[in-house]
Amino acid sequence: MSEKLRHLKQAGQGAFVDRHTTRAKSLLHPYEKGVKSKYGLVGLPLSKTSISHSGASFAPAAIREALQSYTVYSGEAKVDLEEKIVDFGDVYLSPTNLIENQHSLYEALVDVFQTDTAENYFLLGGDHSVSYSAMKAYKEVFGDIGVIQFDAHHDLRNTEDGGPTNGTPFRRLLTEGILPGENLVQVGIRDFTNAKAYDQYAEDQGVAVYTMADVRQDGIEQILSKEVERLAGKVQAIYISLDMDVLDQAFAPGCPAIGPGGMDTDTLFEGLSLLGGHDMVQAMDIVEIDPTIDFRNMTSRVAAYSLLQFMKAKGMR
Amino acid sequence: MSEKLRHLKQAGQGAFVDRHTTRAKSLLHPYEKGVKSKYGLVGLPLSKTSISHSGASFAPAAIREALQSYTVYSGEAKVDLEEKIVDFGDVYLSPTNLIENQHSLYEALVDVFQTDTAENYFLLGGDHSVSYSAMKAYKEVFGDIGVIQFDAHHDLRNTEDGGPTNGTPFRRLLTEGILPGENLVQVGIRDFTNAKAYDQYAEDQGVAVYTMADVRQDGIEQILSKEVERLAGKVQAIYISLDMDVLDQAFAPGCPAIGPGGMDTDTLFEGLSLLGGHDMVQAMDIVEIDPTIDFRNMTSRVAAYSLLQFMKAKGMR
Amino acid sequence: MSEKLRHLKQAGQGAFVDRHTTRAKSLLHPYEKGVKSKYGLVGLPLSKTSISHSGASFAPAAIREALQSYTVYSGEAKVDLEEKIVDFGDVYLSPTNLIENQHSLYEALVDVFQTDTAENYFLLGGDHSVSYSAMKAYKEVFGDIGVIQFDAHHDLRNTEDGGPTNGTPFRRLLTEGILPGENLVQVGIRDFTNAKAYDQYAEDQGVAVYTMADVRQDGIEQILSKEVERLAGKVQAIYISLDMDVLDQAFAPGCPAIGPGGMDTDTLFEGLSLLGGHDMVQAMDIVEIDPTIDFRNMTSRVAAYSLLQFMKAKGMR
Amino acid sequence: MSEKLRHLKQAGQGAFVDRHTTRAKSLLHPYEKGVKSKYGLVGLPLSKTSISHSGASFAPAAIREALQSYTVYSGEAKVDLEEKIVDFGDVYLSPTNLIENQHSLYEALVDVFQTDTAENYFLLGGDHSVSYSAMKAYKEVFGDIGVIQFDAHHDLRNTEDGGPTNGTPFRRLLTEGILPGENLVQVGIRDFTNAKAYDQYAEDQGVAVYTMADVRQDGIEQILSKEVERLAGKVQAIYISLDMDVLDQAFAPGCPAIGPGGMDTDTLFEGLSLLGGHDMVQAMDIVEIDPTIDFRNMTSRVAAYSLLQFMKAKGMR
Amino acid sequence: MSEKLRHLKQAGQGAFVDRHTTRAKSLLHPYEKGVKSKYGLVGLPLSKTSISHSGASFAPAAIREALQSYTVYSGEAKVDLEEKIVDFGDVYLSPTNLIENQHSLYEALVDVFQTDTAENYFLLGGDHSVSYSAMKAYKEVFGDIGVIQFDAHHDLRNTEDGGPTNGTPFRRLLTEGILPGENLVQVGIRDFTNAKAYDQYAEDQGVAVYTMADVRQDGIEQILSKEVERLAGKVQAIYISLDMDVLDQAFAPGCPAIGPGGMDTDTLFEGLSLLGGHDMVQAMDIVEIDPTIDFRNMTSRVAAYSLLQFMKAKGMR
Amino acid sequence: MSEKLRHLKQAGQGAFVDRHTTRAKSLLHPYEKGVKSKYGLVGLPLSKTSISHSGASFAPAAIREALQSYTVYSGEAKVDLEEKIVDFGDVYLSPTNLIENQHSLYEALVDVFQTDTAENYFLLGGDHSVSYSAMKAYKEVFGDIGVIQFDAHHDLRNTEDGGPTNGTPFRRLLTEGILPGENLVQVGIRDFTNAKAYDQYAEDQGVAVYTMADVRQDGIEQILSKEVERLAGKVQAIYISLDMDVLDQAFAPGCPAIGPGGMDTDTLFEGLSLLGGHDMVQAMDIVEIDPTIDFRNMTSRVAAYSLLQFMKAKGMR
Repeated sequence: MSEKLRHLKQAGQGAFVDRHTTRAKSLLHPYEKGVKSKYGLVGLPLSKTSISHSGASFAPAAIREALQSYTVYSGEAKVDLEEKIVDFGDVYLSPTNLIENQHSLYEALVDVFQTDTAENYFLLGGDHSVSYSAMKAYKEVFGDIGVIQFDAHHDLRNTEDGGPTNGTPFRRLLTEGILPGENLVQVGIRDFTNAKAYDQYAEDQGVAVYTMADVRQDGIEQILSKEVERLAGKVQAIYISLDMDVLDQAFAPGCPAIGPGGMDTDTLFEGLSLLGGHDMVQAMDIVEIDPTIDFRNMTSRVAAYSLLQFMKAKGMR
Repeated sequence: MSEKLRHLKQAGQGAFVDRHTTRAKSLLHPYEKGVKSKYGLVGLPLSKTSISHSGASFAPAAIREALQSYTVYSGEAKVDLEEKIVDFGDVYLSPTNLIENQHSLYEALVDVFQTDTAENYFLLGGDHSVSYSAMKAYKEVFGDIGVIQFDAHHDLRNTEDGGPTNGTPFRRLLTEGILPGENLVQVGIRDFTNAKAYDQYAEDQGVAVYTMADVRQDGIEQILSKEVERLAGKVQAIYISLDMDVLDQAFAPGCPAIGPGGMDTDTLFEGLSLLGGHDMVQAMDIVEIDPTIDFRNMTSRVAAYSLLQFMKAKGMR
Repeated sequence: MSEKLRHLKQAGQGAFVDRHTTRAKSLLHPYEKGVKSKYGLVGLPLSKTSISHSGASFAPAAIREALQSYTVYSGEAKVDLEEKIVDFGDVYLSPTNLIENQHSLYEALVDVFQTDTAENYFLLGGDHSVSYSAMKAYKEVFGDIGVIQFDAHHDLRNTEDGGPTNGTPFRRLLTEGILPGENLVQVGIRDFTNAKAYDQYAEDQGVAVYTMADVRQDGIEQILSKEVERLAGKVQAIYISLDMDVLDQAFAPGCPAIGPGGMDTDTLFEGLSLLGGHDMVQAMDIVEIDPTIDFRNMTSRVAAYSLLQFMKAKGMR
Repeated sequence: MSEKLRHLKQAGQGAFVDRHTTRAKSLLHPYEKGVKSKYGLVGLPLSKTSISHSGASFAPAAIREALQSYTVYSGEAKVDLEEKIVDFGDVYLSPTNLIENQHSLYEALVDVFQTDTAENYFLLGGDHSVSYSAMKAYKEVFGDIGVIQFDAHHDLRNTEDGGPTNGTPFRRLLTEGILPGENLVQVGIRDFTNAKAYDQYAEDQGVAVYTMADVRQDGIEQILSKEVERLAGKVQAIYISLDMDVLDQAFAPGCPAIGPGGMDTDTLFEGLSLLGGHDMVQAMDIVEIDPTIDFRNMTSRVAAYSLLQFMKAKGMR
Repeated sequence: MSEKLRHLKQAGQGAFVDRHTTRAKSLLHPYEKGVKSKYGLVGLPLSKTSISHSGASFAPAAIREALQSYTVYSGEAKVDLEEKIVDFGDVYLSPTNLIENQHSLYEALVDVFQTDTAENYFLLGGDHSVSYSAMKAYKEVFGDIGVIQFDAHHDLRNTEDGGPTNGTPFRRLLTEGILPGENLVQVGIRDFTNAKAYDQYAEDQGVAVYTMADVRQDGIEQILSKEVERLAGKVQAIYISLDMDVLDQAFAPGCPAIGPGGMDTDTLFEGLSLLGGHDMVQAMDIVEIDPTIDFRNMTSRVAAYSLLQFMKAKGMR
Repeated sequence: MSEKLRHLKQAGQGAFVDRHTTRAKSLLHPYEKGVKSKYGLVGLPLSKTSISHSGASFAPAAIREALQSYTVYSGEAKVDLEEKIVDFGDVYLSPTNLIENQHSLYEALVDVFQTDTAENYFLLGGDHSVSYSAMKAYKEVFGDIGVIQFDAHHDLRNTEDGGPTNGTPFRRLLTEGILPGENLVQVGIRDFTNAKAYDQYAEDQGVAVYTMADVRQDGIEQILSKEVERLAGKVQAIYISLDMDVLDQAFAPGCPAIGPGGMDTDTLFEGLSLLGGHDMVQAMDIVEIDPTIDFRNMTSRVAAYSLLQFMKAKGMR
């Protein structure tokens, strides 16, 4: 009997392998000390902080798995993505202490960022509350940031009514001075999805707000080109916060807060390609995907595709 | 022990309240004698009259509930919707006498309209057969009407083959002289979804028919602007009949009769905004949504958003 | 026009009424100060404290709604249930402070119990963590209790590893001296569903443990008769804690932790009838039903039927 | 080129054929004038007469299709079922005139029964209202009948409150003198599923009522043996009315009115075997299966298996 | 008693008939020797050859059934489709010998094509592997073909790694000289969905490749007009191979390989209309629809609508 | 910065850990040369050989994952399962050559068995065709076997009509002399689920057949005690082949061939406990679970629980 048993493969490994095809998931490599790469990735599986029932904690795993559905090759650019993504794993969270969890996210990311492993970071939520912890850590390690937020909502709610939920991350960042209002750009804000008080608050704080009407009228390219240039002059890095519910329900059926009147995926990908192509854009979080209510993981597939669009743009610079 | 028990709220009430956010559902107020408002709403939960199996009777409840997912604030118009919607409730229907039910709808709506409560009425089906009863009552109380019908189908079937089903409302209205053909505008009529005989009938009766090819070529704005002006000169009020299956299946997956080749929601909302902005447009029914086969109530969400688009346009006049 | 509009009923009201049939849901009456009745009911919609993702917070509403599927009449006993159930509503909970929520449950229930409204209380979870707060409050107001816990699990986990989750309620009650081990009877404990350490802990604390093998061999009647008599001699009241996952997955497909090898519903109802017939059994919580993953609310229907079995037994004393 | 094209089979035909296996569905043969057989079958796809939303109109097709999952061979009896089932097809129904539909069912079945084609008839609903039309026609052609009704409900509602719904068939049969109360046996009546008034009515009319408690205590065999003998002495034929909601929800998840506390399938099949073995039992209707809400057609499979149990018992006489 | 039994219709027939409406499914007529028509159709229910788990074998039945949802009338063209579709049925396949199955498909289609029954053929898969057999047979009977392939993938995988799967049809056709590279046009090729090696292979073989970026930039009409003219000069017939996964997941949720970034249905239909209008375009296969994972047969509805678009264009020439 | 990053855990690891609880899945250890243990496990993910569409190839992964829902502790026996299960992984299979796949299963298992790693083997299908390969390999390495087959079907079909499918394993084993008929015991054979020819074949070959009627009448314990003793005298080892469709559809909703009239899980577990307790019972395959159509992996949970019952019995010897 040979040491190698015939025909056997490890449990869980894919059944079929094509020798010429590299799956995007294979770009993921667990973090080891000292490694350097163009991309790092951390899972932030916190969603008990959501106002409504949310299984967004399952999204980091679903998005990683969705990368298995894609290859590393762009036929449009005629290039293979070759730089690996260092996967730092997921942050461990307490079942019952949610405030502690938000602090754990922050501490974990400070550690991650201080390893100086990657040029760009992907942070996979979780609900939108994770962006508070992520941006706080990011700024602490790398300096002032500008933020391009794709979102149907302002996420500027007061924190008295429910604590630090997924409705409050940007309120907290502004209030605590981590992110000045003028460094925040909100794109895709939707009608009948926010309160007047928070729109007013955004205006008072100098936040740049672009509604879906603006996107339809001016085009995503014009809006983002202008804003990324404006931010580039005043910050150390630009951070994309991609709340998937910026998309119309037809294109992202697995977000907790779905509805019509949103962005389509072509527009989103066009925006991410533009942003990814800019040197200063160096981080992206993706939040508010609940795989337990999605249809065939469609929304996690959009997330995986968003990562690839970003990386393609970076590779083409 | 104080009279108020700590922490308790009435069963069924929402769990989370943000002090600055007003949910659109809160605009609904049960009818009381003598009240006046800009908007009235009646549920018409009849769908046993459908040719195919339909749970559209559950739509009035689903659409009301979908209003809970929206706020009253339009960031694009920078206004809060503030006028309440007087909710007359649902019409009570017999389990077995469908013809009687159609008469009950008519009688109930005559009563409603005669209260002179609202300037504009929303009538939530149910299947499309309810439009017959609704328009008959509307005309009786308010006078001649012009109708803008968003629909994939003509709904001009003969009544011999199945009685007064959801395929016949406009046939009956035309035949009975309630609605002259030239007062009816059909928008979004789809290929391979109708019979030649009924297209011919529409033409013979002077109905203005716009197919999806027309919508794609001429644009919804041009079509509706022209037709609403034409109708305005000859009727007392204009009534929108919104059969949700005018939409493509990707945008309205919960209609009984789904298919590709339909309208997208952006086009629909553009049309409703235009119509809502016209003084003479004073009623809208929404029909053919079956919540029992929908995905995450997407189609009822479109209905709720359609109401809001209409109200926003009214508010901006 | 008469004040009463023809055919209209309030939105949300059932469509069909049979003059001779009384729905069990109609036994529910919102609490008003000073009212007295045989039964009180409180919703405890807390499930973020669960170790795994749980929508058990939706169960109080689902169980109330399931009562609409039943009538008040037992043809076996030839009696109508006539005593109303005073519904205190649901406890309001914070989205982010789970420990505070457990305290709110406790405070709310102290208030409820101090109203001295009812002879028997139904407490609808939520996950099993709510039993801690409920029993603590119950004991504080009414004195020492004995507990019959129907459950596949001991729920005696240590609290260091995850805080006060749904795995720990009885550990906390024992540790804090609220419930002496010998006052706790666990019925339906399942193989390969618990850890040795916790079985040992139960034994050390004097908890009476009956596995499913015991139930199959000795019969539910013999076990409960013996234990209820034992407890009756030493406590002020007996409290049933019904974790629905005591049932086999074929009978309760909507529990978060499902599996084969469990109890069938006939056995459960036999047990509840026996217990309900005993004077000292005066409270029952029902926990661990997640309506978001159930099939056609089957498990909430079992819960509603369990309430009725209890009430029928009480009525027949 | 040969006339026979290689490899092709008619669209819709099963893909795999085992030369030794005969599918039970192949026992079905469309009716032709003059044919005689042991069994006849008619589809009665009426369910708009239901009090609640019901797709039971799809059951005749689903049950026929479920016969494709079974063979004609009983290994327990060591016999093949060989007598064909003459399939008279389905009764054509109006979309809007439900009273007319009930009359069509009656007329169609009078025609069917008058052909004198079969010794035993299977009548596939539809909701339980079809039993009224079926029994009326059956009696008219064949004479007085006794009825064994498996049901959780009495189905003796008054007809004033909703007309001739699925809640009223036996009320109408009794009132109109088609079926004397003493000729009706109700088995499996469930607690909290009926109203006192109708239980009283049953008693006043001399209906023999057996609750689930009776079934559990006395056994199905003893109950049915006694009752079938009693009926045999006073009628021309015995007719089984099988409302599938007599079964527990774990065994019949696709009935409109599901719940715990019901019969299991083994008990039902034992009962049907006993009844099928009696000469005078010559008809069976199967009602209240809604394939649109079932899980994997489980309930239609039970229906198909029920037919086979009946036929096996007939074959073994 | 009359020979005709009142009210009865054959089991399985549609319940409602409108005398003026002709369903597109009624265009299907089973093949009989000697019949001639404009269209022929064959079902190729093979999907065990798929790399991943696929139920595409159910698609021929689902697509035929979807034709029942459409009429034969185009209101845009003001014409009824009148030419029948000769339905040759489905190819019978072995459960275990997949290579033999591919040969059966080939042999069956050679027979079909040699009957000289139709001017145009619709071949309904099945997975994409069926196109190999279909094109091989088509060429053998009718001569050299040019192919317009709508697809997200090249389907040019090597055959060593898994045999003749759904990833290899065009590789085999090119390798075996059945289809020269320059006769193949691939439209809708998507980023991160293919391997560099196969894109390179396509280029080496002279395949004309149009990515989604090309489609968005140049328009489907310009691309297809140019290519169909080029092919027309060098082949006997042009064959469309429509892999439904060319569509975005929002428009074709039932393909095994779904994802964002794809074509919308309007663009597809525009392309099919253009192609159908060309004399030399005489065959179309539709593949990679798995009805077992679709939502409400949406993707099979797109397939049926695609057939109708093709036929409408043919009819308008 | 410390080497250990705070709070991070590897992607895919469970979120919550209780220090006292050992999950049954943790008993699985990947095979390494030279290791010895009481149990070995191999995944046999072949289901394209099924007559009907089957996703049973996903079952090995689903069953392994279901072990994560259980602990290693039996409170009934007061023991922890401690012996590890050596996991040899899954057999790699070709997408298109099914006969080769069956040979690969055989070769892989010969290799596995020759490692002499374990005393008992668990073989997780896949469809029932895998039992042919498994038993052939088992006999070749370990000598003559007796087989206890739990199954609704004989699985003795002829191989001419579809090749070596999931309907034929025992026919092939008998025909090829690998398993003499008298060494095969079939338990749970169901009425109307087999053909007379195959029942006759079983009888002719001396197979011991026990129908569900036999199981209900004689009890599982009496049947198995007798047969295991009979077999023990004439073979080297006894092998259990557990086709999950032996269970009633209420208990195993995820088998491809479901139906009523089957075994309940309590009876199955009783049988497995008895068999596991016998020295000569040393292998068990579990087949015909299709996780893609199951409800909440119920059927895979039964499979995992079956493994545990077997191990518990082994541990208690």
